Amino acid sequence: MARSRLEGADEPWKTSLTHIERNRVTVRGYPLDEMMGRVHFGEAIYLILTGELPTPSIGLLVDAMLVSFIDHGATPPSTIAARNAATTGASLRGSIATGVLAFGKYYGGDIPACRRLLDDGLALVRAGQSMVDAAAELVTGLASHGDQPTPGFGHRYHTTDPRATRLLQLAHELEVDHQYTQLLRALEGALSRHEAFRDRHLPVNIDGAICAVCGDIGLSPQVADALIIVSRVPGLAAHILEEQQRESPMRVINPAAHEYDGPSERRLPDRRK
Amino acid sequence: MARSRLEGADEPWKTSLTHIERNRVTVRGYPLDEMMGRVHFGEAIYLILTGELPTPSIGLLVDAMLVSFIDHGATPPSTIAARNAATTGASLRGSIATGVLAFGKYYGGDIPACRRLLDDGLALVRAGQSMVDAAAELVTGLASHGDQPTPGFGHRYHTTDPRATRLLQLAHELEVDHQYTQLLRALEGALSRHEAFRDRHLPVNIDGAICAVCGDIGLSPQVADALIIVSRVPGLAAHILEEQQRESPMRVINPAAHEYDGPSERRLPDRRK
Amino acid sequence: MARSRLEGADEPWKTSLTHIERNRVTVRGYPLDEMMGRVHFGEAIYLILTGELPTPSIGLLVDAMLVSFIDHGATPPSTIAARNAATTGASLRGSIATGVLAFGKYYGGDIPACRRLLDDGLALVRAGQSMVDAAAELVTGLASHGDQPTPGFGHRYHTTDPRATRLLQLAHELEVDHQYTQLLRALEGALSRHEAFRDRHLPVNIDGAICAVCGDIGLSPQVADALIIVSRVPGLAAHILEEQQRESPMRVINPAAHEYDGPSERRLPDRRK
Amino acid sequence: MARSRLEGADEPWKTSLTHIERNRVTVRGYPLDEMMGRVHFGEAIYLILTGELPTPSIGLLVDAMLVSFIDHGATPPSTIAARNAATTGASLRGSIATGVLAFGKYYGGDIPACRRLLDDGLALVRAGQSMVDAAAELVTGLASHGDQPTPGFGHRYHTTDPRATRLLQLAHELEVDHQYTQLLRALEGALSRHEAFRDRHLPVNIDGAICAVCGDIGLSPQVADALIIVSRVPGLAAHILEEQQRESPMRVINPAAHEYDGPSERRLPDRRK
Repeated sequence: MARSRLEGADEPWKTSLTHIERNRVTVRGYPLDEMMGRVHFGEAIYLILTGELPTPSIGLLVDAMLVSFIDHGATPPSTIAARNAATTGASLRGSIATGVLAFGKYYGGDIPACRRLLDDGLALVRAGQSMVDAAAELVTGLASHGDQPTPGFGHRYHTTDPRATRLLQLAHELEVDHQYTQLLRALEGALSRHEAFRDRHLPVNIDGAICAVCGDIGLSPQVADALIIVSRVPGLAAHILEEQQRESPMRVINPAAHEYDGPSERRLPDRRK
Repeated sequence: MARSRLEGADEPWKTSLTHIERNRVTVRGYPLDEMMGRVHFGEAIYLILTGELPTPSIGLLVDAMLVSFIDHGATPPSTIAARNAATTGASLRGSIATGVLAFGKYYGGDIPACRRLLDDGLALVRAGQSMVDAAAELVTGLASHGDQPTPGFGHRYHTTDPRATRLLQLAHELEVDHQYTQLLRALEGALSRHEAFRDRHLPVNIDGAICAVCGDIGLSPQVADALIIVSRVPGLAAHILEEQQRESPMRVINPAAHEYDGPSERRLPDRRK
Repeated sequence: MARSRLEGADEPWKTSLTHIERNRVTVRGYPLDEMMGRVHFGEAIYLILTGELPTPSIGLLVDAMLVSFIDHGATPPSTIAARNAATTGASLRGSIATGVLAFGKYYGGDIPACRRLLDDGLALVRAGQSMVDAAAELVTGLASHGDQPTPGFGHRYHTTDPRATRLLQLAHELEVDHQYTQLLRALEGALSRHEAFRDRHLPVNIDGAICAVCGDIGLSPQVADALIIVSRVPGLAAHILEEQQRESPMRVINPAAHEYDGPSERRLPDRRK
Repeated sequence: MARSRLEGADEPWKTSLTHIERNRVTVRGYPLDEMMGRVHFGEAIYLILTGELPTPSIGLLVDAMLVSFIDHGATPPSTIAARNAATTGASLRGSIATGVLAFGKYYGGDIPACRRLLDDGLALVRAGQSMVDAAAELVTGLASHGDQPTPGFGHRYHTTDPRATRLLQLAHELEVDHQYTQLLRALEGALSRHEAFRDRHLPVNIDGAICAVCGDIGLSPQVADALIIVSRVPGLAAHILEEQQRESPMRVINPAAHEYDGPSERRLPDRRK
C-alpha cells in the first residue's frame, strides 16, 4: 500500500469571504444572523462579491441590474437547454447547471468585450480627446473590421431596449452616470451617424448598460459577469419548474412554437412608487 | 436528403412567465423596466417563482432566507468542487455550474425530506392529535429506523445554528409562524427528550427552518429547493473569483487546510437597525 | 487568523483504480504503457469499471454495446441541449457536460427500471416458475398499474429496434444469452399477447437489450449506466463540433426541422466481415 | 394569447452524422447494427468525429491515445471535483458532468497551445529551415517570454512520461511519425540544451505526444480535444462509482491523503502480445 503525499497539499491557503466558527458565521466580517432581516439579498450579493456593503444608491442600482436580467422569455438557448434537461427528468439542480452552461461567449458575453471597448475609449479621453471624438474613433475602428459585432449595442428583438433605458435613467437620477455611461451614450450617437452602422439601428442594449454602470460604480468585469449569471438563475429555475409542471416528458421543444398565457400587463402596487 | 418531421414539434406550447414583445418585457405581467428600481431582487425572485409579488412580511422572510444561505465557508463539497474547476482554468460560468452540480441529495437535500416529515405530522394534527403528541409519534417513528437521519435537525459544526434561530425569530415577529414552524419546534423538543436522540444534540438547522417557514408562507417544496440553489450561487461565484485571484493554477486543494484572513467581526451600519 | 481543522480530513482514504508512481502508471495493476497498442479502448473501459480485463466474448459484447449507443441523431433532448450550449459559444467541454446533464431518468434511464423488472421475474423463476409464467405474471403486474411504462420495450421511432436485434443476436452467437436475455424475450412475447399492451407494439429496445446482456455478463446496473454515458459522449462531441463548424451563433434550434445530408448508406469494408 | 414566431426557427438545418429512419440507423452512412460486433468502439469514435473509418494503423493509434488518457489517479482536480459531487449524493451523470467541467485550460488544455507551437515551427520548416533550427528558434522564443509554460513538455510527477514514450514508439513502428512528431522530438532536444530550460527537465508529456500524433494522422485540434474528454469519462465514472461504494457521504476529501490498495503490478495475458 503506497501513500502519496503531494507537494503543497498541506500548506494552508487563505480565504477572506466567510468565517465559520461553532455557532457563528460571519460574511466579510458581518454576522450572517445579524444580516438576516436587515440586509437585502442584492446587498448581500454585492457584499460577498466586493467585500463591502453598498451605499444606498449603489445598492439600488445593483438590485436594478439583478432584476433587469432575471428572465428574457422562452427562447434564449440557455433557457431552451435547461428545458431540454428538464424534459428528460433531470433534477432541478442539474437542469439549472445545464442552463448556466449555455451562457457562452455569444450570450451574456458582450460585457467583457464592451468593457474593453469603453476602456480603450477612456484611455483616449485621458489622453486629451473629447468623449465625442473618442467615440468617433472607436466607431471608425469597429467599422474597419468589417462585419464585426458592436458589443453593448443592438438587439435581436428590441429597437429600444427598455431595460437599458431604465438602468441608464436610474444611474442618472442617482448621479452615478460618470465616464463609462457618458462614453456609452457618445458611442450610441457615433454609431447612428457612421455610414457603416447607420442602417443597422444599434441602440444601447442591457449588456451595454450593465457594463457601463458597473464600470461607473467601480465593479470589475469579473464581478459584472458574476452578477449576470446570479441574476438569471431564478429565471432558469422558474422555466424548469414550469416545464416539470405543465409539459409531458421527452417532448420535442421547438423554441419558436411557444405562446404566452400568463397575466396581462399590470401596474405595480402603489406603495412601491 | 431526408427531412424528419417529429410529431408534436410544431404544436404550440405555453409559458406564463415572461412575455417578450418588441421594446416591451413583462414578468408575470409587470413591465420589467417598471420593476427596476422599485422591486428588490428577492421580491422579483419570489414573483417569477410563484406568480405574484410578496407581501412586505413575506418579502422580508424570503430575503432573510436567501441571505442566510449565501455562503457557508470553504469546506462544503460544492464549494470545493467549484474551486477545483477554477484551479484548472475553467470559466466562471463553468465553475458555477460545477458547484451547483455538487448539491446532491445529502447537501441542501434535507428540505424535501423535512417537508415530508412535517406533512406527516400535520396530518396527525388534522386528525386530532396535539402538536406535542404528533411530534412524539414522529420521533418514535424515526427512532424505529435505527441509524436514520433527522432531516432539518443537527449540524456538523454548530450546536445551535444561528441562522435557524434568527429565521424562526423573524417568522415569529412577523406573525407567520404557523403550523409548520410550531411542529418544527415541537419536534426539536421531542428529539431532546427521546432516549435514542437525546445524546446526539439535534437543534433545528437552517434547512429545517427554511423548510418550515416556506411551508407556513405557502411555498411548495420545489420552490423552496429553487431558493436554496439561487441563494448559494453568489457565494460560489465569490469563491471562484477568489480562487482565480489569490491562488496558483492546478493546486491541490485540501479543504481542511484553509485559514480565514478576512475582516474581523463587525457590526452593521446603524441606519439598518 | 484562524485555522480550521476538519475531522477526518487527514485520515487516509483508499482507491483501487490507478496507481501513480514516478514514471509509472498502472490501471488495475496493468502498466498503462503496456496496455497501449495491445488493449482496445472498450476493453480498457471494462477493466477500469470492473477491475479485470474482459474475456474475448465479453469484450466483443461490451464494444458492441458501446458502439450501439454512440449516437441517435439530432433529436434527443440531450443532443439538442448540447447544441444549444454550442450555439452560445460555450466550449466543447462545457457543451459536452451540458449534453450529459440532459440524460435524466426518462432518457437512458430505462436500464435500472428494466433491471428491477428482470430481477423480480428471475426471483419468480428461482422460486420454481417457468420463464413464460414469470413473464406473464410480470406483464399482468405492469397492466394493473394502468398507464405505466414498460422499461426496456417500445420506441418512439422504431417498430423493431435494429440495435437491440443485433445485440441479442451477438449474445446468442457468443453463447452468453442466459437468464436475463431469456426472460427479456419471454417478456416481449407476453406483452404481445396481453390485451392491455397488444395494440401498443412493444418490441425490445436497445435499453432493454443492453440491460439484459449486462445482467448476463455480470455487470451491475451502475456499470451498465456508466457504459450508456461513456458511449454517447463521442456522439455529443460530434454534434457540438458540427454545430460550431456549420451553423451561425445564437440560432434558434427547432429539433424537427433538421435534414440529413451525410453519406448514403454504405457497406463496411470487406476485411471487417 | 400571443404567438411568437422567431425568424429562422422553421428553416431546415443540416446534419451529416447520423440518419434515423424507421427501423434503420446509419452513422456516417454505415448501418449501426452492421457496425456492432465488427467495428471497435475506438474506430466508431474516429468514424463519428471524422466521417470515415480509420485505417488499421490509425485505428490502433487512436485506441492507444484513448487508452493512454483513461485515468491518472485520484489527484487531478477533475477527478476530485467529480468525487466531491458524488459525496453529496449527486447522480453518476451529474458527477460525470462535474468532472468534465473541471477540464479547464490548464488541464488537458496543452494540446491546442502545443499545436500552435508545432504549426509555427512547421511554417519555419516549410520556409526552408531544418527541424533542428526551427526547434531552436521556437525555444528561443519561449525563453524570451520569461516564466512561460512549455505546452507539451514537462510533468508534475514524471521525469519521463511512460505514456508519451509508448505513443511515440507506436507511431514510429506504424510509420506515421511524420513532421509533427519529428518537430516534437527536435523541440525536446532544443529544450534540454537551452540554458533557460536545461535545469527544469522538460520531457515530452502525454499531451505533447497526443498533439503531435493527431497532427501527423490529420486530426484537427478540435478532434484531438474531443478525444481527450472522451477518453477520460470512463476514468471519472470509475472514481465516482468507487466513491459511492467505498466512502461515506459528505466526507472532506483531501486529495493528498489517498492510498492505493488495488492489485499489484501484473502483466497482460499472453494472447495480447
